[in-house]
Amino acid sequence: MPEAQPQRIVLASRPTGEATTDNFRLEPMPMPVPGDGEILVRGDYLSLDPYMRGRMDDRKSYAPSVQIDQTMTGEAVGMVLRSNAPGFAEGDMVAAHTGWATHAAVPAAQARKIDTQVAPASTYLGALGMPGFTAYSGLKEIGRPKAGETLVVAAASGPVGSMVGQLAKAAGARTVGIAGGPAKCQSLLDDFGFDVALDHYAEDFEARLSAACPDGIDVYFENVGGRVLAAVLPLLNQFARVPVCGLVAHYSGQSAGAPDQFLAFMRDILIKSITFRGFINSDLMEYYPAFLEEVGAGIANGAIRYREDVVAGLAQAPDAFIGMLKGSNFGKLLVKLR
Amino acid sequence: MPEAQPQRIVLASRPTGEATTDNFRLEPMPMPVPGDGEILVRGDYLSLDPYMRGRMDDRKSYAPSVQIDQTMTGEAVGMVLRSNAPGFAEGDMVAAHTGWATHAAVPAAQARKIDTQVAPASTYLGALGMPGFTAYSGLKEIGRPKAGETLVVAAASGPVGSMVGQLAKAAGARTVGIAGGPAKCQSLLDDFGFDVALDHYAEDFEARLSAACPDGIDVYFENVGGRVLAAVLPLLNQFARVPVCGLVAHYSGQSAGAPDQFLAFMRDILIKSITFRGFINSDLMEYYPAFLEEVGAGIANGAIRYREDVVAGLAQAPDAFIGMLKGSNFGKLLVKLR
Repeated sequence: MPEAQPQRIVLASRPTGEATTDNFRLEPMPMPVPGDGEILVRGDYLSLDPYMRGRMDDRKSYAPSVQIDQTMTGEAVGMVLRSNAPGFAEGDMVAAHTGWATHAAVPAAQARKIDTQVAPASTYLGALGMPGFTAYSGLKEIGRPKAGETLVVAAASGPVGSMVGQLAKAAGARTVGIAGGPAKCQSLLDDFGFDVALDHYAEDFEARLSAACPDGIDVYFENVGGRVLAAVLPLLNQFARVPVCGLVAHYSGQSAGAPDQFLAFMRDILIKSITFRGFINSDLMEYYPAFLEEVGAGIANGAIRYREDVVAGLAQAPDAFIGMLKGSNFGKLLVKLR
Repeated sequence: MPEAQPQRIVLASRPTGEATTDNFRLEPMPMPVPGDGEILVRGDYLSLDPYMRGRMDDRKSYAPSVQIDQTMTGEAVGMVLRSNAPGFAEGDMVAAHTGWATHAAVPAAQARKIDTQVAPASTYLGALGMPGFTAYSGLKEIGRPKAGETLVVAAASGPVGSMVGQLAKAAGARTVGIAGGPAKCQSLLDDFGFDVALDHYAEDFEARLSAACPDGIDVYFENVGGRVLAAVLPLLNQFARVPVCGLVAHYSGQSAGAPDQFLAFMRDILIKSITFRGFINSDLMEYYPAFLEEVGAGIANGAIRYREDVVAGLAQAPDAFIGMLKGSNFGKLLVKLR
């Protein structure tokens, strides 16, 4: 069977505030040709992740911005169609930074082989991929939940939050998950073993969070910011740890709330000996082998669960991505490319 | 020689905003009588420290507030006049939480003997006391300056800042000290070996700080907040560490500046993998023996220098304390009690 026409999605314009479909353009492209040391990858699943919103802006962040008319950055899992690199052969399954595209020629050094005997290929973009590892490394290095402590995480039905909840629960912590709407909240209890599920759309969310944490909060795994962060701050205990891996509520430029929140925050850090520490998973690669082993085994034996939300076809990526930033996905968001 | 009439200073009223002399009252008191397990201490030097401002307010902080008509909290060094506790004898020199008073009966468990052969008694309230240990433990546990890195500290001629600068310099870091006025800035260079001294009263302070840190800031030892913190934030490097031990600029209730500073801060924490961690030295007592040994030796052999600002008589304490909160002291502020 001949390969389908390769396609990609480029950044057509920069968003002002929330991203819209006009910011993206789907276009055909010639089949990429791998250079020396490169491999040609045909994607099976493309991962859509909140951090990509930051790449659409022309401002300093973890990594360079995407330029106008350039392919949107992103990671996919798929098969090697051609290899000009030692160690990779046609037919190998890999995870690689292909961008939002059906095919890509990528440096082999930036690809990693995946073992689909351990877990389905798609999990290497979620529970066994960057989101799962973000949860794992942030908890191991910064959050360190202990038995009897209370951990809070938002976007708790998503790939980072659901892993945070399960790992913290396994460490003996009481887990409070926050999600949007009753279906996701039910999933927190049924699928991911949270002790408490809270709907952040509830009018009295702040009061419910306080009631759900009678002993305060020892670990807050920060991935959203906004209203949840504001509600969490006064509940943080002495020696609380706050790994900061995302601020989704602010990715589209929303403001941070009351003028004196920063001072209140600094005071709390001071008088309660609190740690706030930002990180991205690449800071903490020393945990990666243990992550693959532990979480891979947990997925294989069913002890660790995950949820995927799959849309079909590259053309659906912009809508799905925009929806994700508003919380409309339910589980790890993937684009099935074939 | 009979003992002089014991005196103390009580909290007469709570300040609204900045403290005034009306908030304090000097009064005679009967000679305290030590109970079982207690010692009677006659103070030689009383320490005045910024944290005391927080105790004057009726709000949650490290420790309980001082109540109206109660003795202001504080630590002194002095001599044991009577002991009802094993391990302490008349004539021993101790550091103890006497409050703002010439004499106090204190539980022996809360006093520690000091060795005036190693260093003068007064240094156990400064370079070898709580301020010095705050510098030492915050750097060891959180700041961790490395050779070639840039460290910034404000109130740099004070007892915490001057120790931070000297210890960081000894660790090979480039040290940038901030102080108020030319005399203090000169002292940073001459007495404490800072590489750069900056006057925070300068109109173009922000530009000077930026110019003084061409490679950004790796460690910011936070003890003031306010304008200095705002100027430091945009200069923090990837993986910067910010031990937070004080926010003097805000102790009297001043606000924190622009509305969106908090969001900018959270973004920086995130994209630069920055650590902010509050602490008080009692969190980090595991470093105390090493501190006494290292810094004690440094003071004894002159490698570590310190500066004291001594006022005479308990009656001077309120004025001196109020001045300190505005930066008018020059070195560790002490009240000579005898």
